[in-house]
Amino acid sequence: QSSVTLFGIVDTAFGYVDNANAAGDSVYGLSTSGNATSRLGFRGVEDLGGGLKAGFWLEGEIFGDDGNSKGFNFQRRSTVSLAGGFGEVRLGRDLTPGFSKFISYDLFGQVGIGQFMGWSNWYGTSGDANGIRSSNMISYYTPNFSGFTAGLGYGFDEQTSGKAGRYVGGYVAYENGPLGVVVSYDQRNLAADVDRNALTVAGSYNLNVVKLNAIVQQTKDDVPGASDRKVNAYALGASAPIGAGEVKAQYALYDQKAIDSKAHQISLGYVHNLSKRTALYGTVAYLKNKDASNLGLAARNLSTGGPGAGENQTGVQLGIRHSF
Amino acid sequence: QSSVTLFGIVDTAFGYVDNANAAGDSVYGLSTSGNATSRLGFRGVEDLGGGLKAGFWLEGEIFGDDGNSKGFNFQRRSTVSLAGGFGEVRLGRDLTPGFSKFISYDLFGQVGIGQFMGWSNWYGTSGDANGIRSSNMISYYTPNFSGFTAGLGYGFDEQTSGKAGRYVGGYVAYENGPLGVVVSYDQRNLAADVDRNALTVAGSYNLNVVKLNAIVQQTKDDVPGASDRKVNAYALGASAPIGAGEVKAQYALYDQKAIDSKAHQISLGYVHNLSKRTALYGTVAYLKNKDASNLGLAARNLSTGGPGAGENQTGVQLGIRHSF
Amino acid sequence: QSSVTLFGIVDTAFGYVDNANAAGDSVYGLSTSGNATSRLGFRGVEDLGGGLKAGFWLEGEIFGDDGNSKGFNFQRRSTVSLAGGFGEVRLGRDLTPGFSKFISYDLFGQVGIGQFMGWSNWYGTSGDANGIRSSNMISYYTPNFSGFTAGLGYGFDEQTSGKAGRYVGGYVAYENGPLGVVVSYDQRNLAADVDRNALTVAGSYNLNVVKLNAIVQQTKDDVPGASDRKVNAYALGASAPIGAGEVKAQYALYDQKAIDSKAHQISLGYVHNLSKRTALYGTVAYLKNKDASNLGLAARNLSTGGPGAGENQTGVQLGIRHSF
Repeated sequence: QSSVTLFGIVDTAFGYVDNANAAGDSVYGLSTSGNATSRLGFRGVEDLGGGLKAGFWLEGEIFGDDGNSKGFNFQRRSTVSLAGGFGEVRLGRDLTPGFSKFISYDLFGQVGIGQFMGWSNWYGTSGDANGIRSSNMISYYTPNFSGFTAGLGYGFDEQTSGKAGRYVGGYVAYENGPLGVVVSYDQRNLAADVDRNALTVAGSYNLNVVKLNAIVQQTKDDVPGASDRKVNAYALGASAPIGAGEVKAQYALYDQKAIDSKAHQISLGYVHNLSKRTALYGTVAYLKNKDASNLGLAARNLSTGGPGAGENQTGVQLGIRHSF
Repeated sequence: QSSVTLFGIVDTAFGYVDNANAAGDSVYGLSTSGNATSRLGFRGVEDLGGGLKAGFWLEGEIFGDDGNSKGFNFQRRSTVSLAGGFGEVRLGRDLTPGFSKFISYDLFGQVGIGQFMGWSNWYGTSGDANGIRSSNMISYYTPNFSGFTAGLGYGFDEQTSGKAGRYVGGYVAYENGPLGVVVSYDQRNLAADVDRNALTVAGSYNLNVVKLNAIVQQTKDDVPGASDRKVNAYALGASAPIGAGEVKAQYALYDQKAIDSKAHQISLGYVHNLSKRTALYGTVAYLKNKDASNLGLAARNLSTGGPGAGENQTGVQLGIRHSF
Repeated sequence: QSSVTLFGIVDTAFGYVDNANAAGDSVYGLSTSGNATSRLGFRGVEDLGGGLKAGFWLEGEIFGDDGNSKGFNFQRRSTVSLAGGFGEVRLGRDLTPGFSKFISYDLFGQVGIGQFMGWSNWYGTSGDANGIRSSNMISYYTPNFSGFTAGLGYGFDEQTSGKAGRYVGGYVAYENGPLGVVVSYDQRNLAADVDRNALTVAGSYNLNVVKLNAIVQQTKDDVPGASDRKVNAYALGASAPIGAGEVKAQYALYDQKAIDSKAHQISLGYVHNLSKRTALYGTVAYLKNKDASNLGLAARNLSTGGPGAGENQTGVQLGIRHSF
């Protein structure tokens, strides 16, 4: 009698990362979300007539390795929305409009050790400063006009003074046939008077045998009375179907201007589909930090840090993804 | 194969409150549960034969603006029950029997900035001292006898000494045709030897075009060696259907005897039903504090406080409620 | 359209325990999971063809008395698995393979005041040191070979140095007709260099009118530079069907070698089935501590401690269990 769709993914992987800290120790165990983010959600759409639809979406992350030891919530997405010929308006916590498009332009889908790490909490920031999601957001998505789409979001700061936490951003995309191009601009007010601005451009072209993807992103923190903190990040990838599977290779560069240091990342992955819903996968990633750069690979729920300034790190994930 | 009903509401609203603190700052953003409390629940009933039924009900609050940043739980209701010709017995955490009846006697359903605020944590108390719910409760509800119903609840303190946290209360109601009347008495042992007693009477009469509602409530804290802390609270409202919607207006008075100060609240609301399950709504509320009174409007998950002693506060909520 | 089974149990009981602390105070109120652990879960199986199946299982505990005041999670079980003719491989957090078998060899199913308390956090340990579950575990279960089954589990420590938290263990069982026998060996690395080893043997024999159960368990902590901390625990029980119900009686002995003290426990229970899904039950347990022993009965979510060294404790639970 209910109109709810219950859905989710459990993706758990054996993971290994060498140089997982500055002492050079390695770590291995179970990590989560190596190929797709583990999740549990409830969503539904109601037809209101006249082309109008109401919908809700509640989705939280699953940590299959420890059973969500920090508790379950709906911080992946919790929205109520109205959609029609005019597009869709959503209220609540959600992906920022731009990020929601870019996920498919990263060959590793913004998860696991192979992922492009441009959306990170650069320079000691935390939480939504990474630009991936916003709470207290009103967002608008246009209909699809022959491949053109756009989205806009405004996340309220809810402060009595100042505007720490405020988000505003949007994207424009053209996706038609083999070609896809997205441009987004996002701004978030970090604590105090620090603004973070991110300009991201991504494109993909499907040559049938091989699909090529690229991301170019500049993240810039405006810090009053100090020089800007800038990160220029780049990704270039290629994927190809092989039987029931897919191979993929991606190169990423993180040019951390504020510390005048670069990091290079090479990621190789193979996904073997057992069915539409279930896949086995393996990923290898190598991260080469230069000068003061101390980035680390992102193996979810496997506690790893940077390998130390200028040190390298290699990681492996072998896992299973099951959707329901 | 399962006998579970999955149900819920997502209700999210733009909210604005002026004088949201003593400095006179205003605040705006997304608030939740402006027209009905956002929730996610699982419930079911099993027919045991012979008129006997077993049931369970697990229900937790949803905070659509931030995705339940403090985690999800089942603190709205988590009961197992047996029902039959004798009525219903429930074990667990639930609304106090009286409060469960009074919700419909407040035109604003005990949610949002327009709500009657008699059930509050007066005098610096917190948690279930507001009289809305009790944990560790055994409750009993009679069948409906020609409109007469009654309910009783006893919430164990589970203390090895003292009785802090103990709840006992009940209600009697007559609801038949256009008329409804409820009387309840509730007692909760606050920390130490402080008792809170609340006597509440409410009535409603449906004149077809207009429905009238009223609540009269006295909350009294017995504090050993000090004078009683008393709050007399009153609400008087009228609602009327207008096409697919409903308009409503309510006046409330909070006479805080312990500080010899009053506060007046005027609430106006309009609910526009897009379907049985979905509505748009708007509420405006004005709160006039006198003397030492420093009450604030209740915009859920929009951080607002009292406007300062004797200061006024105005609030607006514009939202969408979607049930599933 | 979804392939998910939503399932659970709500089991809530009135509970009373005398000598609930060293001062001799008693406590009573609502406790949870007196007959079966209250839970809410989501699980599913996908047929991949060729005898291969993928599955997931997410299950969290329900505290019906307070609505999960500490939040809801999936720490009872959160696994993704592959199963086929070779058996089943699971990744994630789960019961240790041995414990998963022993539950049915304790007449009280490892819940409530009547339960065998061998799997406890002896000697001031906490969390998974009790040997019941492990996070970060890869486990393997054989198919059933004419009654023979076996299971193995390895829980990663995920440490950069040391192996605190690592689990390894397994069981072999023969269960056929009236006879059941299980042997398990489990090892967990507690903090620092302390190892906990547990050897458990259990058996049951169904004489039709009466079923007999027994458990023998030795838990030993190897503490470097100190003497071993040993607990020898024994249970012996008998159950019999009576009409729609079942009576059961169990005796347990906890010989705490490190403090050279024993405790005796006698548990009597009656379960009355109202249907396959719903039952009423009553349990009485008496615990006799000798010398320095200070064990207490386990009434979930009713705050009780040990009665003091050498003191006795009696408990009662009267509850309802409802499955869905």
